[in-house]
Amino acid sequence: MQPVNASITGWLALVGLGPGHPAWLLPEARQLLLEATDLVGYRTYIDQVPEDVLGAQVIHASDNRQELQRARLALALAHDGRRVVVVSSGDPGVFGMASAVFEAQFAADAPTAWPSIDVHVVPGVTAALAAAARVGAPLGHDWCCISLSDNLKPWSIVERRLIAALEADFVLALYNPASQSRPGRLYDAFRLIHSRRAPTTPVVLARDVGRSAEEIVCAALSDVDLRICDMRTVILVGSSTSQLLATATGASRVFTPRWYPSETQTG
Amino acid sequence: MQPVNASITGWLALVGLGPGHPAWLLPEARQLLLEATDLVGYRTYIDQVPEDVLGAQVIHASDNRQELQRARLALALAHDGRRVVVVSSGDPGVFGMASAVFEAQFAADAPTAWPSIDVHVVPGVTAALAAAARVGAPLGHDWCCISLSDNLKPWSIVERRLIAALEADFVLALYNPASQSRPGRLYDAFRLIHSRRAPTTPVVLARDVGRSAEEIVCAALSDVDLRICDMRTVILVGSSTSQLLATATGASRVFTPRWYPSETQTG
Repeated sequence: MQPVNASITGWLALVGLGPGHPAWLLPEARQLLLEATDLVGYRTYIDQVPEDVLGAQVIHASDNRQELQRARLALALAHDGRRVVVVSSGDPGVFGMASAVFEAQFAADAPTAWPSIDVHVVPGVTAALAAAARVGAPLGHDWCCISLSDNLKPWSIVERRLIAALEADFVLALYNPASQSRPGRLYDAFRLIHSRRAPTTPVVLARDVGRSAEEIVCAALSDVDLRICDMRTVILVGSSTSQLLATATGASRVFTPRWYPSETQTG
Repeated sequence: MQPVNASITGWLALVGLGPGHPAWLLPEARQLLLEATDLVGYRTYIDQVPEDVLGAQVIHASDNRQELQRARLALALAHDGRRVVVVSSGDPGVFGMASAVFEAQFAADAPTAWPSIDVHVVPGVTAALAAAARVGAPLGHDWCCISLSDNLKPWSIVERRLIAALEADFVLALYNPASQSRPGRLYDAFRLIHSRRAPTTPVVLARDVGRSAEEIVCAALSDVDLRICDMRTVILVGSSTSQLLATATGASRVFTPRWYPSETQTG
């Protein structure tokens, strides 16, 4: 990468590791990890950087929920001439570190040179896409991504978006479904889902997709057991047209057809 | 890959090329392209397979809108023992070939052996993620994917989903915005958007992302000129919190913050 401003020789790249499997890491992400002098990220994701790209990079690992501090550190390092990679899982632009870096870069009280820093975002395979691929094609029709975390937004907006998406018959991809600090929100969300989707609606619970501990459950909405869900789980909820089938070997398949019936009234 | 049923030695893999840049092709996709005996796909996408993975594979290129025929050909080839890769752009599960293959595999009139065929989906970087990465982090908060094509669904469901997503303040990613057979639908969609989003809302038009002809326009909703849009364009429409900024060098940045205000009423 070439710096955009000759007076600042460092750069900052936002990289997603994908859902965790090395075969899902983009070549561009791998290349920038190799070129970096500094890696910045949440400790859990730093630990997932493939060993064969680790060398002399300085590691700046931090705890969860320190996104803005981490973003400021990364910008300050790039401003000092370092080649900085900020590591997220999945895609850094989908509930990852990219927004935090831009918030910090363009904040009213940011150093005046920061808007000149070259910030580059590498896309990645976000968890919903990886979970979908494992079970078939549940995202084959219109779908939406909703984070169930109410750390940074009021629960009322989560509810409003869930209801809108359910009533318009979108397939749902639900991120950050549960944490120790808010174990009940997932059940609040599923009460809305149960009231607006048929009991036969396919649901996919995908935990640690692409990692050795991968666990994927496909079930009808009426049968789903949410207890495996934690912050490493993404949940897919089918639309009125999604189908849950079994292959000849008993594996579950979920897909949403490309077509949509003309006369169906749902929601 | 190992076949799931010993009596069928072929397999079928659905692979997305990503948005077109070789640095965005997943290693798993590349590996399966190399292992394939047959490549099946829409001619435009077959032409984008990187030359260094092409060898002795038999190419089965077909025209647009022949998804089910293409799916059946691919399943028949796998059933005959071939190693078949079906090529899509982006992610094969997002408005790509994956749904069509499962529809064909599990159709009531499909050959009885087809449900035993090993079908494997490789996720990919879908166009919305690639376009977002190019401009910043517009998908940093809840967002949805809507195809504006009414070839296989009634326009009324597109309208209903657009209105729901606009009123619940999702960021929108709009696929298949315009084709020669339905040039007016994009303008119908934007009438709904203009009536429900502020004139300052950031809009991103991203055409041929990751390819040599890449063209990306960021503009406020009141200023956007839709004439560059065609089937190779993805459109992102910000939410009430999305911001459009310029870097020190004049490049546009669009991002949606991670937080959401408690008291905002929109829609």
